Amino acid sequence: MSAKDELVRTFPVIVTQAVVWGDMDSYQHVNNVVYFRYFENGRLEYFRRIGWFEIEEATGIGPILASTHARFRRPLTYPDTIHIGTRLLEMKDDRFTIEHNIVSEALDDVATEGQGMLVSFHYATGKKMPLPEELKERMRVLEATVQRN
Amino acid sequence: MSAKDELVRTFPVIVTQAVVWGDMDSYQHVNNVVYFRYFENGRLEYFRRIGWFEIEEATGIGPILASTHARFRRPLTYPDTIHIGTRLLEMKDDRFTIEHNIVSEALDDVATEGQGMLVSFHYATGKKMPLPEELKERMRVLEATVQRN
Amino acid sequence: MSAKDELVRTFPVIVTQAVVWGDMDSYQHVNNVVYFRYFENGRLEYFRRIGWFEIEEATGIGPILASTHARFRRPLTYPDTIHIGTRLLEMKDDRFTIEHNIVSEALDDVATEGQGMLVSFHYATGKKMPLPEELKERMRVLEATVQRN
Amino acid sequence: MSAKDELVRTFPVIVTQAVVWGDMDSYQHVNNVVYFRYFENGRLEYFRRIGWFEIEEATGIGPILASTHARFRRPLTYPDTIHIGTRLLEMKDDRFTIEHNIVSEALDDVATEGQGMLVSFHYATGKKMPLPEELKERMRVLEATVQRN
Repeated sequence: MSAKDELVRTFPVIVTQAVVWGDMDSYQHVNNVVYFRYFENGRLEYFRRIGWFEIEEATGIGPILASTHARFRRPLTYPDTIHIGTRLLEMKDDRFTIEHNIVSEALDDVATEGQGMLVSFHYATGKKMPLPEELKERMRVLEATVQRN
Repeated sequence: MSAKDELVRTFPVIVTQAVVWGDMDSYQHVNNVVYFRYFENGRLEYFRRIGWFEIEEATGIGPILASTHARFRRPLTYPDTIHIGTRLLEMKDDRFTIEHNIVSEALDDVATEGQGMLVSFHYATGKKMPLPEELKERMRVLEATVQRN
Repeated sequence: MSAKDELVRTFPVIVTQAVVWGDMDSYQHVNNVVYFRYFENGRLEYFRRIGWFEIEEATGIGPILASTHARFRRPLTYPDTIHIGTRLLEMKDDRFTIEHNIVSEALDDVATEGQGMLVSFHYATGKKMPLPEELKERMRVLEATVQRN
Repeated sequence: MSAKDELVRTFPVIVTQAVVWGDMDSYQHVNNVVYFRYFENGRLEYFRRIGWFEIEEATGIGPILASTHARFRRPLTYPDTIHIGTRLLEMKDDRFTIEHNIVSEALDDVATEGQGMLVSFHYATGKKMPLPEELKERMRVLEATVQRN
């Protein structure tokens, strides 16, 4: 099974994009900073898929990234196409952790792994708030569309 | 006279910053895109100096960048310190053009020249508006602090 | 005819990509700097299509961006998909000018127009050099695949 | 003691820079991706201070970022000035971990904490290599210039 097929089998949200020349730094590899933009692209698509932007408009509760981590396994270079997989790793009352795998088509391998911890935040009062139940349910439904190893 | 002294003599607003390693691309020069961030840094400091942010809050009228241009004379590399000069080139009723020169300390020379055309915009109605008189006066006062060749 | 169809009819090289959330700045529009990365993506694809990277390896002659310009007609926002068209505007012995149009699917319109002037440069000697004939011929062939108004 | 003074007391390498307007995203806070560029600026200055670039030229052994982490404690906004502290956390034969604290002048507080794990890498052979002894000694000397709690 290709690395991409394995990703699609196990991550419910996949964003596919080209590595662009300008993503590389003077070592002629994709710069470490850029991977966090890749993660952000995956994360935002995950939020869009569960309709968080509409829920945020209705409840005033949105996500704040509290911490994030990347482990660089293999360097990416231009030209290449990558698939950014995003899935839920753990959910608590007022926070959850998501996981990213970035698969390179040129390498047919996972290039980078990452995680992000998101806190449920009520912007008007500046306080943490429990995740809306509707949102948690949508995440469960989305996650049920793929297999977990 | 050093290139920096010449810049200070002729541009009323100077932003000084380090070229960082990550500004370079895989040709090991500062990437062309980054120069427009340098220009933006200079432009925003110019706006801050004339108090446009307060005027925008009071009048709802703010700047929109309508067009911009860069001419790359000499490539920048890390490590270096640059001085971004910004000055008014031409003012009309509802728009004005600013000019940037970026001086490299390592080269003791102007590395890049640029321009930006800004339109006076009323965000609430989505329409062009004449520049507030107060703002035009402040720009004249600021520009009078330097010599023009 | 849609703005995209018009673009495809008149520009030989089209790069299609998603506007990502992080392309926006605090005015909640795509930041002006990002458009030059879009242009770069189009430019690099144009160079890839005419095989300049191979020619550069064989001859040591590559492109240097000498100047660039953007005119912002309509702001882009996330989410959207854009089509970046690139075509030759003018060719001289040791330089040429390319033109970009960025079409937004959400707006069905040209959001931004740009140009870039590229100089033919021999890196080892640090001097301008005439464009390799093979390259000029490939550009002519590529340009002949579309109509020009 | 100010947060900056505490940073200077405990981190041997400090990079000071302005938060620029373009560092913010559409939530009007500095975007999460940008913090990793701040860390990179600190890391590169640390490497410059121990002369790794010269050692890399002599030995062919350079650093590769294997993993990195950020914990976002308080959001940064423009305008502000930040101090990026970098220090050694742990050193092994062929790798070491560095730690970053970013102090905001406006907040008089640590805004972000981060870590990076660097592997000693011989580029020509593509293999991990022990850290050059000279480099380890220089790191010890540099670290001895500050107090550790």
